[in-house]
Amino acid sequence: MKKLKRSARLVEMTQYLLFRPHTLIPLTTFAERYNSAKSSISEDLAIIKEVCESEGLGDLLTLAGAAGGVKFIPKVSKAQSEIFMVDICRQLEQPERVLPGGYMYMSDLLGRPMILNEIGKMFATAFAGRDIDVVMTVETKGIPLAYATATFLNLPVVIVRRDNKVTEGSAVSINYVSGSNKRIQTMSLSRRALKEEAKVLIIDDFMRAGGTIHGMMDLLSEFRATVKGVGVFVDSDEVEEHLVEDYISLARLTHVDSRSKQVKVVLGNYFESDQ
Amino acid sequence: MKKLKRSARLVEMTQYLLFRPHTLIPLTTFAERYNSAKSSISEDLAIIKEVCESEGLGDLLTLAGAAGGVKFIPKVSKAQSEIFMVDICRQLEQPERVLPGGYMYMSDLLGRPMILNEIGKMFATAFAGRDIDVVMTVETKGIPLAYATATFLNLPVVIVRRDNKVTEGSAVSINYVSGSNKRIQTMSLSRRALKEEAKVLIIDDFMRAGGTIHGMMDLLSEFRATVKGVGVFVDSDEVEEHLVEDYISLARLTHVDSRSKQVKVVLGNYFESDQ
Repeated sequence: MKKLKRSARLVEMTQYLLFRPHTLIPLTTFAERYNSAKSSISEDLAIIKEVCESEGLGDLLTLAGAAGGVKFIPKVSKAQSEIFMVDICRQLEQPERVLPGGYMYMSDLLGRPMILNEIGKMFATAFAGRDIDVVMTVETKGIPLAYATATFLNLPVVIVRRDNKVTEGSAVSINYVSGSNKRIQTMSLSRRALKEEAKVLIIDDFMRAGGTIHGMMDLLSEFRATVKGVGVFVDSDEVEEHLVEDYISLARLTHVDSRSKQVKVVLGNYFESDQ
Repeated sequence: MKKLKRSARLVEMTQYLLFRPHTLIPLTTFAERYNSAKSSISEDLAIIKEVCESEGLGDLLTLAGAAGGVKFIPKVSKAQSEIFMVDICRQLEQPERVLPGGYMYMSDLLGRPMILNEIGKMFATAFAGRDIDVVMTVETKGIPLAYATATFLNLPVVIVRRDNKVTEGSAVSINYVSGSNKRIQTMSLSRRALKEEAKVLIIDDFMRAGGTIHGMMDLLSEFRATVKGVGVFVDSDEVEEHLVEDYISLARLTHVDSRSKQVKVVLGNYFESDQ
């Protein structure tokens, strides 16, 4: 790359770091990339670090020494997340979302990249320090959330299937009882999708009693994997017993009446003071 | 936001634009955001524009007049895409990917955000000028690709389901014949997922004869929607007849032998000279 002025270098370095979250970038990489002295690069990084931190974009960690460099950790403050989620809760309360059986339509919200990115950033912030190898979800509606989260954590995604697909190779299948309607269902995961003893973050769009997530945990035990965290977009407190205790939710469905189409959605446990 | 120096403003503006592709941002938004004169903002944007264009990150369009502003169009050059895809083709040729029936395991590649981002940028570049309302795919493996593409085009995603789910509300279903194995299958799309006469970009991971994509087109005609483009990650030339003619592929499977585990993958039609 040709030698750039500081102003141009700042633009280029910013985009370079933003697209490589949670990745250690040695100073020499930048010094060679921009044909600049390490001291200039350090000054540039100090400017980027200050903006990232003062504007709440995330942390820019500097690691000293021979194996040193910088690492961008995308973060969003809880205050900013709360403003965003209050608006989402209001949208989830729209009466036209109520479906027969008390289900709630939310595929439109989970289809918008801007919303997914914000949610992904929240989960990435909540689980940033947990030493995770892989983000896992079950098809279908959890997939975009898992990818958004994995993008900001720079981790691979593994998708649990409802059936055993020929394109996945040999797979491990389990049966599980869906918590809310007590139906027996199957889920399966390709053998080659997950290495043994992987450390896994589970992400899903909705949790009622937690049967599906509990099923994923059972499946993970077949791979001797460890669950490092569970994040759901919306949970429901309309159940007596949760099969999963330790999880983070961003919104909580507290009431839904399919006849009057009344819905009440509040902030999830992520925003409770002790989280 | 407090008044920032030029260097800090460049960092902040770069991230602001990168996370809002294909969105018109009036100069006044920046002027107010940074408490700066429009002339300074214009100079900042000229610097960002030059870096974006010289480093191949995309175009920064400037629209003059009262309704004017700037719009960032992420792009990746065909030369850069080719380097990336040659490496992907090599990875797809690994013999351990070959599954019984001549299928190919590629969920690992499609599970890595860095790879998805590159592919998403390629599709966003290929279809940037086509006046699209929504990106559509069918569950499951196409979903991450559709989201990656939609992120760079700043468009919503719509997911066609293999079955009719209670959480999707009333839906339109069609039967279609899967091209390669001639099985009759069903796909359905929630009525509320797509507005009438929408302009749709179809994205999928794999196309053999094109039965699934042809099915999506049939489904779209039920919504009086228009197909504005079709993009597939890998297509196969091992079929006599393609049901879909006008599409872009990034890689092409030309030979797979499930006994000897030999696979041949070359660049897709996107890289042919006439595209």
